Amino acid sequence: MYAVVLAGGGGTRLWPLSRPERPKPFLSLLGDQTLIQRTVARLSPLILPRDVFVVAERRHLALVSEQLPEVPAANILGEPMGRNTAAAVALAAEAVARPDGEVMLVLPADAHVADEAGFRGALAAAAEVARGGSLVTLGVTPDRPETGYGYILARPPAREVAGRPTFAVERFVEKPSTDQAADLMATGMASWNAGIFAWTRATIRDRLARYAPDILGPIRAISQAGTAADLELAYPSLRATSVDYAVMEPASVAGDVSVVPMSVGWSDLGSWAALRDAWQDAADSSEAEPAADATVGLGNRRDIGSTGSLVLAGGRLVVTIGLRDMIVVDTPEALLVCSAERSQEVRKIAEELSGPGRAPAVKQEEKT
Amino acid sequence: MYAVVLAGGGGTRLWPLSRPERPKPFLSLLGDQTLIQRTVARLSPLILPRDVFVVAERRHLALVSEQLPEVPAANILGEPMGRNTAAAVALAAEAVARPDGEVMLVLPADAHVADEAGFRGALAAAAEVARGGSLVTLGVTPDRPETGYGYILARPPAREVAGRPTFAVERFVEKPSTDQAADLMATGMASWNAGIFAWTRATIRDRLARYAPDILGPIRAISQAGTAADLELAYPSLRATSVDYAVMEPASVAGDVSVVPMSVGWSDLGSWAALRDAWQDAADSSEAEPAADATVGLGNRRDIGSTGSLVLAGGRLVVTIGLRDMIVVDTPEALLVCSAERSQEVRKIAEELSGPGRAPAVKQEEKT
Repeated sequence: MYAVVLAGGGGTRLWPLSRPERPKPFLSLLGDQTLIQRTVARLSPLILPRDVFVVAERRHLALVSEQLPEVPAANILGEPMGRNTAAAVALAAEAVARPDGEVMLVLPADAHVADEAGFRGALAAAAEVARGGSLVTLGVTPDRPETGYGYILARPPAREVAGRPTFAVERFVEKPSTDQAADLMATGMASWNAGIFAWTRATIRDRLARYAPDILGPIRAISQAGTAADLELAYPSLRATSVDYAVMEPASVAGDVSVVPMSVGWSDLGSWAALRDAWQDAADSSEAEPAADATVGLGNRRDIGSTGSLVLAGGRLVVTIGLRDMIVVDTPEALLVCSAERSQEVRKIAEELSGPGRAPAVKQEEKT
Repeated sequence: MYAVVLAGGGGTRLWPLSRPERPKPFLSLLGDQTLIQRTVARLSPLILPRDVFVVAERRHLALVSEQLPEVPAANILGEPMGRNTAAAVALAAEAVARPDGEVMLVLPADAHVADEAGFRGALAAAAEVARGGSLVTLGVTPDRPETGYGYILARPPAREVAGRPTFAVERFVEKPSTDQAADLMATGMASWNAGIFAWTRATIRDRLARYAPDILGPIRAISQAGTAADLELAYPSLRATSVDYAVMEPASVAGDVSVVPMSVGWSDLGSWAALRDAWQDAADSSEAEPAADATVGLGNRRDIGSTGSLVLAGGRLVVTIGLRDMIVVDTPEALLVCSAERSQEVRKIAEELSGPGRAPAVKQEEKT
């Protein structure tokens, strides 16, 4: 079994800390390690660094090498630019020469997992299912009717694999309304799409050829007989779409997708509010007394009486007084002060600031 | 008539913008002019700059000269250090050689006045009363039961001077509780103590000699026959107290104080919340549509959907989203993010940061 870590993303949702030149995977948002370092570390001992591959934009390759010295240099694949996850998966499926029947795990580089042993257990079960030849997605059991994620609806009956229930996928559901999300939760059969997949190399190459030949074709040709310059030429015209859209959704209609639900304290850290929650959980579990309404943060800071807030100080002193559910992020370039409940809107600002030239990359990030 | 502007203060209440080395009078907090520039400008044409005197700590004299080029250099008096307003008034009363019967106005350098013509009218009436030989204080008619100010309780009947009612002062009231403040407002005879006074030179010298000989004595001796070095030696051991405590309160017991109430949109700008209100008022009166709940501020800033907030950006971009009644002040040294209703607590932080050596100066500021 090997893992392909996708280190993409536009660097807009955690602005001003994340930036196009240093997006989320490469930031130390929870502790000393960066998110990509934590992603690789939590795979071990199920998958060791020598069996980890990373797909990243070329401009980020130096960051990958620097942050993951234990991953062999040959395992790091550069894309000329981000073209969303379908292209990245196709590149890994073609360029990484592993046996046809070996299981390839695909996962993003920038998520948080509280229960790492439980996470590896779910990956192992997913790999077991994948060996049977189907496409497998890992689903996160929801603890709230979140509208920011896509959902996976499972179809009973459960099949037990490696001590876990697994299901056929009934269908994928786009980001729902609040009412739809509540209905989905009520079924007990819905989970969040975390962008974590398992399949054999043979299976994904076959399904890409079937459902996304326009993406697989150029990448396969270049992998077999091309050069880096050819990839550079071909990449801009590749369809930028997610592997969910391109492969998983049509395959689920054909009854070809399984889901392994897991409940492991997963978060995509996709907003400052989500990061605040993850910080808060970490603080709660490290304290003798739960600090549920305390303010958490980093750096040179002083607080009087704030609650439910995350304060990330840069070099300067940051003084906060009486904040309620606020996000404060101080960087040398810019300062963000934001109500946690509106932290999804940070993206608007980041997109506007980065100008029209960045708009496509931002849109691609939607489904990663 | 001449005016003595007192440019003191510890620079703690509007931290991090105000600092011991550049306290509030020397900051441009409302528009392009600094507060001391606005203070001098609004006296004209009642009192022209040639008749304005300034008392400031020596370390701030360069700021005074730079910001008030129209005030003659000989009119700027340096104190070796701040010893509160009684000492500053004594210094001005002794060192400024004006006729005994001329009226001396005393006022702080860092207040805001919305209705400047009305303010000059009140000063003219106070001067008229002062010519009769009593101590006169200007009182601000309260529009809310504020607990952050001292109150002046007037005693009927009113005496009309220059078209305005004036009163004898019944007593001064220390900063009251909320209940006390409401009771005071209900009397219709209470006003806020704004630290603005009128008296003849002869009257204040006489009352200082009577009520605060320990302060007047050394200053008089040095003014008549001493040097700057003598002042330097004497100042540290002067009693640091306000002119309210030292003179006005005992004189009011003797029935020797009058009050001229005024309602001119006065604020001491003594907290970030007060400054936010003054900004808001200025924005409201300059807009076709009242912008009562908009966010106001300065500098390189972007906002989405905040209300009732003041954002002062420094050089960096400041992005705010969804703030409710918040203060954000970004300076090169430090950042403050504060709930407006708790902005009085900024002082605690500023005092702690400035260390124990600054504590006395901070306490002196209480009554200025």
